[in-house]
Amino acid sequence: MNQPLPSEFIQKLSELFGERFTTSNAVLEHHSHDESSYPAVMPQGVVFANTTEEIAQLVKYCNQYLVPVIPVAAGTSLEGHVLPIHGGIALNMNNMNQVLGVYPEDLIAVVQPAVRRKQLNTELKDTGFFFPIDPGADASIGGMTATRASGTNAVRYGTMRENVLALTVVTATGEIIRTGTQAKKSSAGYDLTRLYVGSEGTLGIITEVTLKIYPQPENLAAAICSFPSIIDAVSSVIQVIQLGVPVSRVELVDELAIRAINQYSKLNLKEQPTLFFEFGGSSQSIKEQTESVQEIVKSFSGEDFEWATHPEDRARLWHARHNAYFACLQLQAGSRIMNTDVCVPISKLAQCIEETQHDLQNSWLKAPILGHVGDGNYHVLLVIDPNNPKDLEEAERLNSLIVHRALKLGGTCTGEHGVGMHKMDFLVDEYGQDAIDVMRSIKKALDPNNILNPGKIVKMA
Amino acid sequence: MNQPLPSEFIQKLSELFGERFTTSNAVLEHHSHDESSYPAVMPQGVVFANTTEEIAQLVKYCNQYLVPVIPVAAGTSLEGHVLPIHGGIALNMNNMNQVLGVYPEDLIAVVQPAVRRKQLNTELKDTGFFFPIDPGADASIGGMTATRASGTNAVRYGTMRENVLALTVVTATGEIIRTGTQAKKSSAGYDLTRLYVGSEGTLGIITEVTLKIYPQPENLAAAICSFPSIIDAVSSVIQVIQLGVPVSRVELVDELAIRAINQYSKLNLKEQPTLFFEFGGSSQSIKEQTESVQEIVKSFSGEDFEWATHPEDRARLWHARHNAYFACLQLQAGSRIMNTDVCVPISKLAQCIEETQHDLQNSWLKAPILGHVGDGNYHVLLVIDPNNPKDLEEAERLNSLIVHRALKLGGTCTGEHGVGMHKMDFLVDEYGQDAIDVMRSIKKALDPNNILNPGKIVKMA
Repeated sequence: MNQPLPSEFIQKLSELFGERFTTSNAVLEHHSHDESSYPAVMPQGVVFANTTEEIAQLVKYCNQYLVPVIPVAAGTSLEGHVLPIHGGIALNMNNMNQVLGVYPEDLIAVVQPAVRRKQLNTELKDTGFFFPIDPGADASIGGMTATRASGTNAVRYGTMRENVLALTVVTATGEIIRTGTQAKKSSAGYDLTRLYVGSEGTLGIITEVTLKIYPQPENLAAAICSFPSIIDAVSSVIQVIQLGVPVSRVELVDELAIRAINQYSKLNLKEQPTLFFEFGGSSQSIKEQTESVQEIVKSFSGEDFEWATHPEDRARLWHARHNAYFACLQLQAGSRIMNTDVCVPISKLAQCIEETQHDLQNSWLKAPILGHVGDGNYHVLLVIDPNNPKDLEEAERLNSLIVHRALKLGGTCTGEHGVGMHKMDFLVDEYGQDAIDVMRSIKKALDPNNILNPGKIVKMA
Repeated sequence: MNQPLPSEFIQKLSELFGERFTTSNAVLEHHSHDESSYPAVMPQGVVFANTTEEIAQLVKYCNQYLVPVIPVAAGTSLEGHVLPIHGGIALNMNNMNQVLGVYPEDLIAVVQPAVRRKQLNTELKDTGFFFPIDPGADASIGGMTATRASGTNAVRYGTMRENVLALTVVTATGEIIRTGTQAKKSSAGYDLTRLYVGSEGTLGIITEVTLKIYPQPENLAAAICSFPSIIDAVSSVIQVIQLGVPVSRVELVDELAIRAINQYSKLNLKEQPTLFFEFGGSSQSIKEQTESVQEIVKSFSGEDFEWATHPEDRARLWHARHNAYFACLQLQAGSRIMNTDVCVPISKLAQCIEETQHDLQNSWLKAPILGHVGDGNYHVLLVIDPNNPKDLEEAERLNSLIVHRALKLGGTCTGEHGVGMHKMDFLVDEYGQDAIDVMRSIKKALDPNNILNPGKIVKMA
């Protein structure tokens, strides 16, 4: 049970935020869950902040009265990142949703943390630029930064790690710092930007993000291709990557996921392991890319290489891929999904998926597979009945097998979803206790009272 | 004056390293300087380490007896990074110079820290891959990692920040940690890799580096082009970058530097602001890139666009560019160079260089300019007589003007050379005291006794 909020603290927040601070039950409930399969946890209060300065003052109070504070915007986390498991204040950032500046000459955009990625691309549309990172969900840029998100475009454009240039951050003591400049590169001291990227709200609160943007490709083309086995599909991708073909996206969808997609998106795709490709560039470059790729997939028995050059066909195809998560939810009525997220060196990916498929065949759970295979990252969508403890237990068992297999093959427990509540033990297995101790020292140094999203990433004493 | 090394400490190091620990004057002297213009400072002892485990034990002793330890390999720092200004042990890494593994399928190489970049590329040559980061000097990979180095190829391939995948690090307490896996991306906890990249030996000692490697481009072509003014040259580059033309390198060399190069490399280049280009890819892609670039430079009065497609001509041209530093040293007999290293948003680069040229015209110092202009990074090579305090003072004055101009334009005091001894005050101007306090907290947390390369990056109490 959490301590009740101190009355002095409540009074100060009321003075500072007026009606934008609330303890109303309906609002608390609204801030008690994310997209993960974890049970809801209520915060003790909710603040709707408008400015960095307000947040700095809020955090000063939280630090003074030892009240946890958990930033949240879109709430699309799959790992319970925004659940206030030690109580405290849910800091709703959604009022801070402005694109503050677009600087095409410098290939930079500056945004507030609650800007959604689709909103950003809508605002960029007429500039000839775009922001490529696409985790599927219409996540907020702040949340994507905090979890070091990536997604389908990462094979060409990298992850949030590579695409955040600088941040404004409120520290645990309520100071406002800038972690970088607008220069494209710098050797000036410790890389605070990269330290906060992926820190999941546990080291500071991100209130402004400077992002890299890219020229919109002259042309885009999409294609799909089915394979007799996942091994053939993955082996094709390894060759594509190794040859340096600059594909924009290459996604693996297994038989079961294709079946789900066909049902959900009313398509008629062959129910076999399938690769979705996207190519961008000049028409000449796309021609070169696709010729290389077609030759490679043919040598791995890829069939029915099917083109979608018309924007509508392309959109329909990628829309179907994007909705795969929801399609898979429909495989079983009333289900939820526990999503695995390992990432391995690409040379180990085929073996990793193949061995995992054996595990899955011996389980009663439906478990379609989606993969950002160009990066060695794949998801098993473990479809569970949330009211059946046996399902949950089985999902945890499979997840653990999958994670430890990935670690053994030189991989990581999370390619893009983050640690949250769920992978703290796996993190120790991945890094070893001494590296975790280094992380813990950093957390202690930057948040001595453990008020910033406590209970996530590393366990404190 | 430093405390003498404790006799117990000396005894333990002798037991551990035998003759690989020495206090001989000749060896100490050899470890008393780098490529910077700072006066030599002697360490109190030198250790030649062979393994990570030895280094861990060494650091344990250093931590126990409060003796500073400063890792050094190639010693090509321009900022005094390896000068043992508080005494202690110079840790010579040069025995750890093996390429431990090359994994073409995963686009990864694993190296010991003293592997030089040219050595790595020689060893990679027959694999069809290469490591692109090229700071000019034949630096060690460990040193390049520790200073977040970059250079001419960064415009296409990024810096060490983007190209180090994982590290083995010895912490200040002598623990050995791995900061990442071989997976291409990860959201697993705090980004320790990026924290150690650019930490200049102050947070831990890097003993193994996992690097990204890239397919060697099918073809390479080089070209140079001269312009009536630096503004025209830089404006061309802005357009090239903004259009997303994937040039491999684009370097600015001003009139004075061209004159130096002509003299040093026996060339006959027109003494005007000049851009050096390199293009890589399929012949079709190179054709597209060069057509775009030629059209752009023409619109900014670029003349004599001159091709070097033959490998020998290309090598000669880039060799001349690489030797520009040494060429500029010859502008004045017995001189040394104080090198500025600011980096600004590319839209501000022309203004930044133009205003700087006005400063330089009003100074007696010779001051050629070289620039990695695709990244907004340029160097003023302030040619000084090291025995003339007035020269040194004038160089410091100009450097300060140049840095503060860059900061005002949204830039950084160091694009690629690092902070070292020279930019600790500029760092405060760049980030503000609160962000520096965050860096200091991290330093205190990870090196509580301040034994790791003390006196660099942030001032400790």
